[in-house]
Amino acid sequence: MSTYAIVIHGGAGTILPAAMTNELERSYKTALQEAMDAGFSCLSAGGTSVEAVKAAVISLEDCILFNAGRGAVFAKDGSQEMDASIMDGSNRMAGAIAAVRNIRNPVELAYTVMTHSQHVMLNGKGAQEFAKIHGLKTEPDEYFYSAFRHQQWKQMQDTDETALDHSVTIPSSTATEGKKFGTVGAVAVDQYGNIAAATSTGGMTNKQWGRVGDSPIIGAGTYANNKTCAISCTGHGEPFIRAVTAYDVSCLMEYKGLSLQEAMHLVVHDKLLKIDGEGGMIGVDASGNTAMVFNSEGMYRGRRNSEGLNETLIYKL
Amino acid sequence: MSTYAIVIHGGAGTILPAAMTNELERSYKTALQEAMDAGFSCLSAGGTSVEAVKAAVISLEDCILFNAGRGAVFAKDGSQEMDASIMDGSNRMAGAIAAVRNIRNPVELAYTVMTHSQHVMLNGKGAQEFAKIHGLKTEPDEYFYSAFRHQQWKQMQDTDETALDHSVTIPSSTATEGKKFGTVGAVAVDQYGNIAAATSTGGMTNKQWGRVGDSPIIGAGTYANNKTCAISCTGHGEPFIRAVTAYDVSCLMEYKGLSLQEAMHLVVHDKLLKIDGEGGMIGVDASGNTAMVFNSEGMYRGRRNSEGLNETLIYKL
Repeated sequence: MSTYAIVIHGGAGTILPAAMTNELERSYKTALQEAMDAGFSCLSAGGTSVEAVKAAVISLEDCILFNAGRGAVFAKDGSQEMDASIMDGSNRMAGAIAAVRNIRNPVELAYTVMTHSQHVMLNGKGAQEFAKIHGLKTEPDEYFYSAFRHQQWKQMQDTDETALDHSVTIPSSTATEGKKFGTVGAVAVDQYGNIAAATSTGGMTNKQWGRVGDSPIIGAGTYANNKTCAISCTGHGEPFIRAVTAYDVSCLMEYKGLSLQEAMHLVVHDKLLKIDGEGGMIGVDASGNTAMVFNSEGMYRGRRNSEGLNETLIYKL
Repeated sequence: MSTYAIVIHGGAGTILPAAMTNELERSYKTALQEAMDAGFSCLSAGGTSVEAVKAAVISLEDCILFNAGRGAVFAKDGSQEMDASIMDGSNRMAGAIAAVRNIRNPVELAYTVMTHSQHVMLNGKGAQEFAKIHGLKTEPDEYFYSAFRHQQWKQMQDTDETALDHSVTIPSSTATEGKKFGTVGAVAVDQYGNIAAATSTGGMTNKQWGRVGDSPIIGAGTYANNKTCAISCTGHGEPFIRAVTAYDVSCLMEYKGLSLQEAMHLVVHDKLLKIDGEGGMIGVDASGNTAMVFNSEGMYRGRRNSEGLNETLIYKL
């Protein structure tokens, strides 16, 4: 039996201890632990890496603290449009959805696209029709609503600015009312040595014009291939798309022989920084190595493996 | 002054001489030559590679023979939704749009996203609002309509099948009425040694659920980086997304030292075939090398450079 492991993230950004209360920090860590455990239980019970990343991301989507599923940010028009993707490293099958509304678990929809359609990427109303046919769970607008996200959007609605969900300055008093950051994602390696990755997001606060970030783009926000690595990214989506970030890590491993950690370090601390790509990523390889790398102030993250490693972290070490 | 060059494609697929009349062949070759000349004139006059690929793709979009812009295929619901992308190899800026309707030149919209927004990818109605603000030319449904595409769709509408635009069998009699294939694209290197790529498509006949193929995905259908290559792909979009096809060529050049031709050959004839990825691609590098590689029966294609090369081709050589 191989070492099995799961790594998760809840978004990267300007996360500073000064803006955080002990209580809020505890809430985040609890939420991260729960999501990680959901994925880890799956792996322990002999489940696949695909099932594990899905379980972990569903847990993060269901948590209002993160910008995915429940708690997604508001677009310019006040809607909450969500993107997600998933990839199976054992066969490089993939599923992705962009610009869906009212779907409780966008990652579940991406999974259903992968397993029940001939396609990789579905979009907008079409994706929602597909969801309906396959009985995906929906929720009313109120379910996704959080007072904090709404306030964050109201601050920006009359401007033409957009913002990463972690970069809007909020008075510290409101931090205690539920300050929330980030795109979520998970990568895992199972007992059979197969790896997988998944990512889910509400995108940028006040986003306009049907903007699609890197999260639903296979190769940019998400990638998995047993030969190399499974990667889930978070951060400023545009540079991540332009740099084809997740697949770049894979190519550096496959074609240049870099280790997972070396490849992720080069991409995040050198290549992304050169094009103002703020953010980070998590990764695993088929041997059970894990890594969590970011160039921002912090990244909500955690990892757990069958050798006893079990940690949740927020700030730089 | 560097060698400057442009390469174009009008889609790959089962294109057989037996299904083609002399007259139709001439129409295709004339259309390819016109598009190529539009891009080449731009380069000769000192224009940039970005301007050249845009000019060539606009010419192909305006031609009803190809599955992009005018002449796009019909989706399951009878609509014509189009995708496009463009990337500038000198700075790796990129623009992409998915699922737009009634925009005369989707590549022009992708270009406007690249040059006039903070984003890389816009989608659906949002992309169309953005187009309106920036004064992009629109056309009524009738403009995009072609009798052949409509017949192609009607044949499939009541099935759950989808098809590449080149894989629906049409009685040979209708071939003379305008048999049309393919996604279109262009890559170019200009006098300054800068390279660019662009791709535009109407997607698959009878496509459903807002299916997005590889054409608007940076890294999959389109990629450009002065250090390596500019690539535009055509074919069965799903394997191209899963293989992150265009960027893979770039990585094989950057990380393994392969030439443009070697990298494209490996990706098209080995890596894509292993995952049933039928289709092809065109490429240039900053030294003025060009290549056109496909694993299907044919690919509408052409290339012209400042050393006197000037050819349009359809079948395998």
